[in-house]
Amino acid sequence: MDRLYVVKIGGNIIDDEMSLSFFLQRFSEIDTHKILVHGGGKEATRLGEQLHIPQRMLNGRRITDAETLKVVTMVYAGYINKNIVAQLQAGGCNAVGVTGADGNCIQAHKRVTNEVDYGFAGDVDVVNDSFFKSLLYQGFTPVVAPITHDKMGQLLNTNADTIAGEIAKALSPYYETHLIYSFEKEGVLLDVTDDESVLNKLTKTAYEKLKASGKIFAGMIPKLDNAFAALETGVERIVIGNGAKITQLISGSAGTNITNE
Amino acid sequence: MDRLYVVKIGGNIIDDEMSLSFFLQRFSEIDTHKILVHGGGKEATRLGEQLHIPQRMLNGRRITDAETLKVVTMVYAGYINKNIVAQLQAGGCNAVGVTGADGNCIQAHKRVTNEVDYGFAGDVDVVNDSFFKSLLYQGFTPVVAPITHDKMGQLLNTNADTIAGEIAKALSPYYETHLIYSFEKEGVLLDVTDDESVLNKLTKTAYEKLKASGKIFAGMIPKLDNAFAALETGVERIVIGNGAKITQLISGSAGTNITNE
Repeated sequence: MDRLYVVKIGGNIIDDEMSLSFFLQRFSEIDTHKILVHGGGKEATRLGEQLHIPQRMLNGRRITDAETLKVVTMVYAGYINKNIVAQLQAGGCNAVGVTGADGNCIQAHKRVTNEVDYGFAGDVDVVNDSFFKSLLYQGFTPVVAPITHDKMGQLLNTNADTIAGEIAKALSPYYETHLIYSFEKEGVLLDVTDDESVLNKLTKTAYEKLKASGKIFAGMIPKLDNAFAALETGVERIVIGNGAKITQLISGSAGTNITNE
Repeated sequence: MDRLYVVKIGGNIIDDEMSLSFFLQRFSEIDTHKILVHGGGKEATRLGEQLHIPQRMLNGRRITDAETLKVVTMVYAGYINKNIVAQLQAGGCNAVGVTGADGNCIQAHKRVTNEVDYGFAGDVDVVNDSFFKSLLYQGFTPVVAPITHDKMGQLLNTNADTIAGEIAKALSPYYETHLIYSFEKEGVLLDVTDDESVLNKLTKTAYEKLKASGKIFAGMIPKLDNAFAALETGVERIVIGNGAKITQLISGSAGTNITNE
């Protein structure tokens, strides 16, 4: 079974040109199958403000009205995705940028809850594993923007952590799949203000206890929920850590390993 | 030899939701290999104005400074490309949206002239025919945004008519390639104000005469220059006409046929 790295980048790495460039060089050097999933950084918020579109967040998720969907589609699928692809191509990595609409590779549905209307926010229904396998088999590196569609013509804004987790789960029957959530922190921290407090290892039992006692930073919860869900469905290994140390996250010498025991 | 339609849409079709939707339904119905190349419409100009970025045009081409490149990348590769892909997917057409950076499918260089600095405007060097053949072979319909790259990390704004012509030329050794330039006019008009004055046929000799006498509308010249260049390199048939009549352009019952004799 070939090895596959599904790497999610988000947060400050995307907002900082130098950090992103450094990350992409290291990512290019991964010499096996790989998929990059990127978040949006602060650019969409900035553009929304410039265009005087009010931004609303709830539980760490953006409420996506029609104007906001247009902004995130432009920023995530256009500006960020294509600049990452061009940089990877320059580094010799044969990247192809996609959203979930392209090749119908990630189908989703509009999120419906009783409490709040998230607007055009998508929850993933199915990842088209054949599409990704075909690209990987041909030597391409898919670069996935956090936009999906409902197969009825509607684009949907979708959490990038969730997309990375769903892709890893869908491909784990075909590859020894390693899922790397990289961001600006060293990993799961016991004290969010202290980078030294990184946990080398986090089990499900320990996570539930920490979550119950309020010790897990709210922004980490969707990431960790996705991570444990992925682990239960056959993903080989999950690591959360600093994108600047992507090489060490892959080798296992940095970040937090999410494990069952 | 399988048949391939390379269809360019631009102008008012893209700006009008109903026209675009009507066009995409007809395009979906083409039951052989097809590639769609889209222009940008007025959306990029509108967004540039909202963001207070001065817009400059020269000889029908946009002068692309860094801020304008960002705008066109967002609008062309993000908003327009992904909305077209989602609509085609809804119509059962397995579309994949790309720029020239994706899979290194269209490599270009920054245009350099003595007279004027066009900024980040790209002239096409090479179309990666293998990339397009692979997508077509797998049943995908590439949807190409008018953005290319220089393989050194720089995205470049590139004329969509040129991209359509270059793709048709590159694929004509492998497919019986039909190139359709569709826009809001009925075809090449002898009198730009009179839709009835459409030429059913335009030869190179007739074109040169009309151009010399100033009878060809300036905006048509790049399209026609591209068309005749494509014809000389093995493209089977070239038609220019109204996107609303895409079915008739394909069957040969509307538009202007560009021919050698």
